[in-house]
Amino acid sequence: MGKKQDYFVGVDLGGTKLLAVVFDEAYAPLGRAKEKVGKSRDNEAVLEKMVEVIGDALDDAGVKRGEISAIGIACPGPVDFENGVVLETPNLGLENFPIRDRLSADLDVPVFLENDVNAGTYGEYVSGAGRGFRHIVGLFPGTGLGGGLILDGRLFRGATGGAGEIGHMIIQVDGRRCGCGQYGCLEAMASRTAIAKDLVALSTTGSAPAVYKKAGSDFAAIKSSVIDKAWRDGEPAVVDLVDRAARHLGIGMANCVNVFNPELIIIGGGLVEKLGAPYIEKAESAMREHAMGRLVSIVHVKQAELGDDSTVIGAAALAREHQS
Amino acid sequence: MGKKQDYFVGVDLGGTKLLAVVFDEAYAPLGRAKEKVGKSRDNEAVLEKMVEVIGDALDDAGVKRGEISAIGIACPGPVDFENGVVLETPNLGLENFPIRDRLSADLDVPVFLENDVNAGTYGEYVSGAGRGFRHIVGLFPGTGLGGGLILDGRLFRGATGGAGEIGHMIIQVDGRRCGCGQYGCLEAMASRTAIAKDLVALSTTGSAPAVYKKAGSDFAAIKSSVIDKAWRDGEPAVVDLVDRAARHLGIGMANCVNVFNPELIIIGGGLVEKLGAPYIEKAESAMREHAMGRLVSIVHVKQAELGDDSTVIGAAALAREHQS
Repeated sequence: MGKKQDYFVGVDLGGTKLLAVVFDEAYAPLGRAKEKVGKSRDNEAVLEKMVEVIGDALDDAGVKRGEISAIGIACPGPVDFENGVVLETPNLGLENFPIRDRLSADLDVPVFLENDVNAGTYGEYVSGAGRGFRHIVGLFPGTGLGGGLILDGRLFRGATGGAGEIGHMIIQVDGRRCGCGQYGCLEAMASRTAIAKDLVALSTTGSAPAVYKKAGSDFAAIKSSVIDKAWRDGEPAVVDLVDRAARHLGIGMANCVNVFNPELIIIGGGLVEKLGAPYIEKAESAMREHAMGRLVSIVHVKQAELGDDSTVIGAAALAREHQS
Repeated sequence: MGKKQDYFVGVDLGGTKLLAVVFDEAYAPLGRAKEKVGKSRDNEAVLEKMVEVIGDALDDAGVKRGEISAIGIACPGPVDFENGVVLETPNLGLENFPIRDRLSADLDVPVFLENDVNAGTYGEYVSGAGRGFRHIVGLFPGTGLGGGLILDGRLFRGATGGAGEIGHMIIQVDGRRCGCGQYGCLEAMASRTAIAKDLVALSTTGSAPAVYKKAGSDFAAIKSSVIDKAWRDGEPAVVDLVDRAARHLGIGMANCVNVFNPELIIIGGGLVEKLGAPYIEKAESAMREHAMGRLVSIVHVKQAELGDDSTVIGAAALAREHQS
């Protein structure tokens, strides 16, 4: 008679949607559910919605509530993972919310909370591009630029759980303005936002007609897909800006090589999912040019493999390891 | 009857001098010896000199060779610490030298090899400014800018022992030329070398008379002491350059705060030993301005306490821990 199967649930609490996935011990997804977060975004409303989505995912998987061993929640912004408290969430209304204990009480199962980029990096480590590596830097350029660290085979959190803010490493003293208020952060030089900021101005002057046709000069409309299309069509202004962003990403990667001495850098996130291998190759080439030869010679660069599922897998894996 | 006392020896193999110090279990120095490395700098000549200096330090301490439990050697440049091999040393002629096994065979005692900046950071951790902290970044601006990392209470080496090259983190894309061949590295923007490169040019044009009087326009003569004297005397060009270097150091510290989430940053090295607290305060102020508020709020900044002894203490401590 075999050992009883354990099931784990990963929950990704995003700015607009809630995703819950049920996994078996090998992190194969057995069922899932997704919902918009909705307009009521206070602590209680989000908790209620979360219980509902987890229930739907369990139904989809045909797994009973009593059969799950642990739930992992990933959410944006800083978390107090030791106490399971969401400190603040940029695009949600949560603040100082002890979500771990509340959800654990509601569902009678151990719950673990982690920041979403950390969870995503961990997901790639246990089940994606990072399998078999022990020293990994994850970089996820999109609207922002998230970073996660696996050092010596463990998620590295630093002294208070905030390590890995690689997007806010300054690579250009007094450079471009970043969303964080500083100037010259990697995020301000290599994210989709960095590209879109230049494109709106170019659109206005007629220098990026393909972008103008799709998005006008509306910053919010310049999604990764718009950039990707214009880039593949060879729109010169877009090619130039994307190449520069890739070079800056590569310099950020080189900095990571020099300080962390990793074996692997995983590149993922919205922008990379669209621009794909040619973009990563440009970034990798800049990395190899700018890092110390002895250190970069051992570095592999891989695209993230799990997409959005990396976060729920990582959250589930961290919850599993934490409760054992 | 008390337990038998253990003794440890730390050896610092520098570019010009060899220092050996004998320590008791509390890392109190019991005896020391120092010698110039001399002109014969091949593997065998350096080994012979090292045995001699260790013998002199033991004599000075009144400790017999058979009483030492372990020897730690610190040397510049990359080392293969697992196999105890010096890979290359910028200012010495050593290359691929299995110094651990050779010295261990000669003296019949366990030997451990580590890079000098790592050893120095570790020394401050076990016995200096870092006591009681578990997450530490050490930065040592001088001719270059060395970096060392204590993460979760352990020396962090990365995948192949090369982590912590914080001096070669690029903080200014296409910035000033660095000794490593790249542009805009922290070392190229915040070391004594960075300041001296500007000062030679200013000396020539008469814009830094106090420096010119001491050093002419000779780059090699612009030592930390020359910079310090002119800075304290308020020579405007020097004040400006030192302030800029301190600001850049602070930006490098901010980057470390954002990626490592440390509790403590230790600043040491030749430049800092001269310029002292006012310089560190300027760097710290720039760090607090440029790092993420939530992360920097927990960061202490301290000047290294052990001077040159940090390296021998760290080497001895690492050797002790490795053999136990």
